[in-house]
Parts: sequence; C-alpha cells; structure tokens
Amino acid sequence: MHEKDLYARVKDDYPILIMNGTKTYPDPNYFYFSGAKFGGFENCAMVVNKSGTTIITMELEAEAARETDCEVLVYKTQAERSQIIIDKLKASDKVYINASKLNVQHYFEMKKMLPNTTFIDCSSEILSTRMIKTEQEIASLKEATKISSRALENAWSKVHEGMTEKEFGTSLVSSMMELGSALPQCEPTIAFGENTAFPHFQATDRRLKRGDFILADFNALYNKYTSDLTRTVVFGNASKEQNEMHDIVLQANEAGRKAIKDGAVSKDVERIARNIIDSSRFKGKFIHGLGHGIGLELHDHPALSISSDMVLKKNMTITVEPGIYVFGVGGVRIEDDVVVTKDGSITMTDTTRELVEL
Amino acid sequence: MHEKDLYARVKDDYPILIMNGTKTYPDPNYFYFSGAKFGGFENCAMVVNKSGTTIITMELEAEAARETDCEVLVYKTQAERSQIIIDKLKASDKVYINASKLNVQHYFEMKKMLPNTTFIDCSSEILSTRMIKTEQEIASLKEATKISSRALENAWSKVHEGMTEKEFGTSLVSSMMELGSALPQCEPTIAFGENTAFPHFQATDRRLKRGDFILADFNALYNKYTSDLTRTVVFGNASKEQNEMHDIVLQANEAGRKAIKDGAVSKDVERIARNIIDSSRFKGKFIHGLGHGIGLELHDHPALSISSDMVLKKNMTITVEPGIYVFGVGGVRIEDDVVVTKDGSITMTDTTRELVEL
Repeated sequence: MHEKDLYARVKDDYPILIMNGTKTYPDPNYFYFSGAKFGGFENCAMVVNKSGTTIITMELEAEAARETDCEVLVYKTQAERSQIIIDKLKASDKVYINASKLNVQHYFEMKKMLPNTTFIDCSSEILSTRMIKTEQEIASLKEATKISSRALENAWSKVHEGMTEKEFGTSLVSSMMELGSALPQCEPTIAFGENTAFPHFQATDRRLKRGDFILADFNALYNKYTSDLTRTVVFGNASKEQNEMHDIVLQANEAGRKAIKDGAVSKDVERIARNIIDSSRFKGKFIHGLGHGIGLELHDHPALSISSDMVLKKNMTITVEPGIYVFGVGGVRIEDDVVVTKDGSITMTDTTRELVEL
Repeated sequence: MHEKDLYARVKDDYPILIMNGTKTYPDPNYFYFSGAKFGGFENCAMVVNKSGTTIITMELEAEAARETDCEVLVYKTQAERSQIIIDKLKASDKVYINASKLNVQHYFEMKKMLPNTTFIDCSSEILSTRMIKTEQEIASLKEATKISSRALENAWSKVHEGMTEKEFGTSLVSSMMELGSALPQCEPTIAFGENTAFPHFQATDRRLKRGDFILADFNALYNKYTSDLTRTVVFGNASKEQNEMHDIVLQANEAGRKAIKDGAVSKDVERIARNIIDSSRFKGKFIHGLGHGIGLELHDHPALSISSDMVLKKNMTITVEPGIYVFGVGGVRIEDDVVVTKDGSITMTDTTRELVEL
C-alpha cells in the first residue's frame, strides 16, 4: 500500500528498509506500507519497493502478515533474518531508511549487515506521503472523530459532584471502546478546576466541585487511525471570567479553522488564531502551537506552528486547538479535527463548541 | 534517580545525553532517570551525570519537570535547546547515548551539534541497571499485578453467551482503570474459541459460545510500571482435550517458576518448561519464548529464551508464560509475573491458575 505515492516523491527507486521497534515502540510505517491490521512485528524488518512490500517476520506474526497483500518471508533465528535482508538488498548500492523512527541500534546493525551500502534518510518523503490522506484513511479518521464526539457526550451525561478526574477518564475510555475504538494511543488529559491551567495535565484524584472547569483532551483509535478532541465545559454555572475565556478561545478556534484551505501557509493560520488571544487581556497565555497532523500517530505531521512555512494541501488532516491557561485559575482549550479541502476545510469532530454548563 | 546504579556499571563518568521521542514514542529512560510522574516531554533532551540529572524542556512541560528533583532548563526555540545541550556537554569529549531508543534523526542532530564528540552506546548498561528493580519499583509492579488479578476476576464475573471479544476487552480495561490502572501500554489480547490458537491475536466481533476457550492476555499500568497477565478458561464445561492442554501448560508454568532463582541461567529455565510441553503430544506447539522482563516497558529485559545465557539476579522481574497453540482448535497460555529472590522467586500475580469453567 502507498508505495506508488511514496516513489512519486523520492528521487530514485532504491529500496526502503524499515526495521520495526518493540511492541510499545513500533514504526507506524510498518503498518502504513503493509496494511497489516493486527500483529506486533517486534523487531521485524520490511523492504518496500516501487513494485510492492516484503514483510520479514517470525512465525509468531506470520498469520497477521499473510492477511496482507505483501510478500511474506519467515525467519527462525536472527542470523536467518539478517540473511534474508542481505539477499533482498544486495543488488542495490543505496538503500533508504526512515531515520525518524529507526533506532540507532538497528541502524548500526544494518551498517554491519551491509557494509558497502549507503543509507539515505527518506523520512521527510515518507511524512509528506503520509500527510496526504487517501479516502480510506479519511473514512477511518471520520469514524474515530465520530466515536470521540459521541463518547464525550456520554461521559458528560455521567458527570456528578465529587467524581475524580481519574473516574471521568475511565468513563470516557470505556465509552470510546464500547463505541468501537481500540485502546487509545494516549492517556486522556482530564483536568478539573485549577488543574485545567496545565495543558498536558495527567488525571489525579481531585474531586469535582460546583463551578469547576472540566477539560477533556482525548483520542479514539479506529483502524489504527487516531482522532484528537478537546472540549472545556463548566460543572454548574459559568462565571463571567469562564465565559470570557471560553468565548475568546472559541473565536480563535473558529478563525483558525476558517483560515485553513489548500494553499494556506501553516504560520499564517497560526497567526490569525493567536492574534485573537493576544489582542485580549489573555495575551501570552496561549503557550503551545495551534495544531498538528493526525493519522497513524496522535502527533503527526504537519504542525500548525508560528515557525512553519509548510503549505497546507488538500486531504491533510490536522487539529486546531487554541487555548488560554491562567495559573491558579484554570484553562480552556477547544480542539477540532479538520480535513483540508480545495476551498476550505471540513470539520470532522461534531460535538458542540458552545460553553456547556453541566 | 538511579544515576548511581548506572555509573556503577559504565566504565567512565562521561555524561549521558538522552533525547526523548514523540508523545507516543518516548524513551522510558527519560522517566527512569528524572522520576517525572507526568508530562510528555516530546523531543526534549536530558543530561544524566553521576551527580544528578538535568531536564531540558519547553515551558509546556516545565511544571511536570519542576516536580522532580532534577535541574530544569527551559528553552523557547530549537536553537536555544541546542545551545543548552552544547553548553552542558562541551567539557566532555565523550558522551554516552542510549542507542536502543534514540532515533537516527536525533543521532544525526547530536553529531551536528557536537562534531568533535565521540558518542558511545551505553544502552546495555542502562538495561542492566533497569533489570534490577528497587523496592519502590517492585511495589509499583506488585500494585499493577494486583490490579490485573482483581480486574480479571471482575471481568470473568460479567462474561455471558454472545458477548464479543471486543466487549470482553472493554470490560477488562474499564475494570483495570476503575481499580487504579493508568491507560494500559498495549491493547489486551482477547481471543475466544479457535482464535486462541494465535498468540498475538487482536480482539474481533467473534461472539462467545458454550465450550469456547477464553484467553485474556493484558497489562495494567501503575506509577508507569506494567504488569502482564494471561489466563485461559472455558465458557461452560471443559472437554477432555481442553483439560489436557491446560494441564500441560500449567505444569510448564509451575516448573518454569520453580526453576527461577538468583544464579539460574535463562536458557536452562526455558528448557525445563519447554521440555514438559515437548514431551507431550503437543510437541512443537509452544511457538514463542518462555518469558520477558517487565518494568517501564511491557517487553523489557531480560528474556527467558532458549538462546539466552543471561544469569538471573535478585530483584529482576520477569514473566513466565508457556503456551500450546493448535491451529483450528485453540490455544492455552498461563502467564505469571515473578520477582527473582536469592533462593527462588515470588509470584506477584495472584489469581487462580486452575482451569476455571465459567
């Protein structure tokens, strides 16, 4: 899968050698090019060519490999694995690698196996390919965003005074999985009250009180593709300050999404949203980037960042997530997932953005 | 944390530069040496010295960093990050790296930043250090195994005819999180009936029928430490063959655990368990290694493997997980987590190993 799109970007037809990591540190490209739906493929290799992909695996994962369209070669020992890789690559004096996920240990192993081969990093071409989603990838992301949106509404309906942040997180994960999500890629960020001032907070036993902000930032996983959704609501009646913070962030979110289209430049989109916050009394309180790509990884490419000249293209999928964080008071973030189109964008996350009072 | 233990293993006092990966691909050593309890530290750096550790991070994660005992240096731009790293390391002509997690892109970046520095891989010394757990680490693992054991008993009590594998997985994850687990590191392996023949199966919509094996292999996460537990039961009455398979695997599990002690050799432990299966009519049906270390990673070091001469040491924590897999029929795996002691081992996973008929 995707081999043609990649080879339209790299200059030459050299094969690409991908070495997968351990179970908890796989290279997502192993799944991108193989289309494997399950299996861990720990420390397995893969050779991608213009004409197709070869999975080099042990018997334990061979069944998962055989369900793909790839050639499957099975090894029993590490020596056999090396020999298969050498046989597959010895005809080429140059081999591409994916330096952004390949670990240095595997890199040294490759250089030892193929001492006369020149290794060339093609990770930026791989990322450029992965940034532009196919219809099938967009369909998976739409399902993931739909699951997130419905799960959040379920979780809001179960909120009660005295509930802990951890309990809310558990309720949200359960609801996503009941709605068809695989285990999410990351722990949800769940914060109540003053804890919402930390953008990357981790849920604690802090209990919910009347008047608290509730911030939920979380991701559903469908067909290996991940959504990313944040909403901030109030438990009880919102104060004047809470309304004001939420209103400014919502304006920034809407302006950011509106600025996105094929041809727009990342830093221009970021500036439009940031200016809204920096023109308010919360100037300087938006302490992270406006957004990031989503796909096989939660933080994928491209970034919507003040320092990025990246030109957005049709079928990129990105988050828009402005926020305001006031230490000791709290924070608001409103995050949506959009698909870039020729003339604008389609927002996939479809739960309300208004300030909900639970 | 742990700096002294590490420097007792490496030959020289050179500083160690750790570059953390992205949110979903962190280097666990970033947390091992800092003791950070939360935060993502995407692409952040860290310098470990005999005298202590310095976290080099952006403002977004500074709060999480300041809750540790480490020195904290905050950067705003990538150029500032590089300058801090250069300043920290320029006095040493040699710098250690952790090649097993460092990605090649970061490695090339380091070499560019410090062109006259020699980088030396110390990942095997780091792994040797991490293999021997402190009392505090063992306490976290004990809590994780306790959560797994109780969650499994809860999940068994909710099993019903027609339930899907995915539904069972959701029930298990919810129960673990309710009992205090963070989001598990990996999707549980849940298989019913003939699907239990695949050791790394991924839950489907297959519905539970009378007479099915149910195999659950899953992990709870507590204080960033992960357990790993597998049990296989029967929904309804077990057949003669199911009883026989389970009985042989249980014998192998018990013999394996009994063979473990400080000074035992990995491959000898593996052979004792494997011989029991290979002496039965299921010879050759145990198609993976006997066990692996657990800790900050689900598949950590050391491996209990037929090719490993590793000598087990007191306070290593490892799994013992023999299995029999018969394509078209089903499989049985019984996995426990043990701490190696001077004279034997302590089994932390404490739910029954007998063949349960639900």
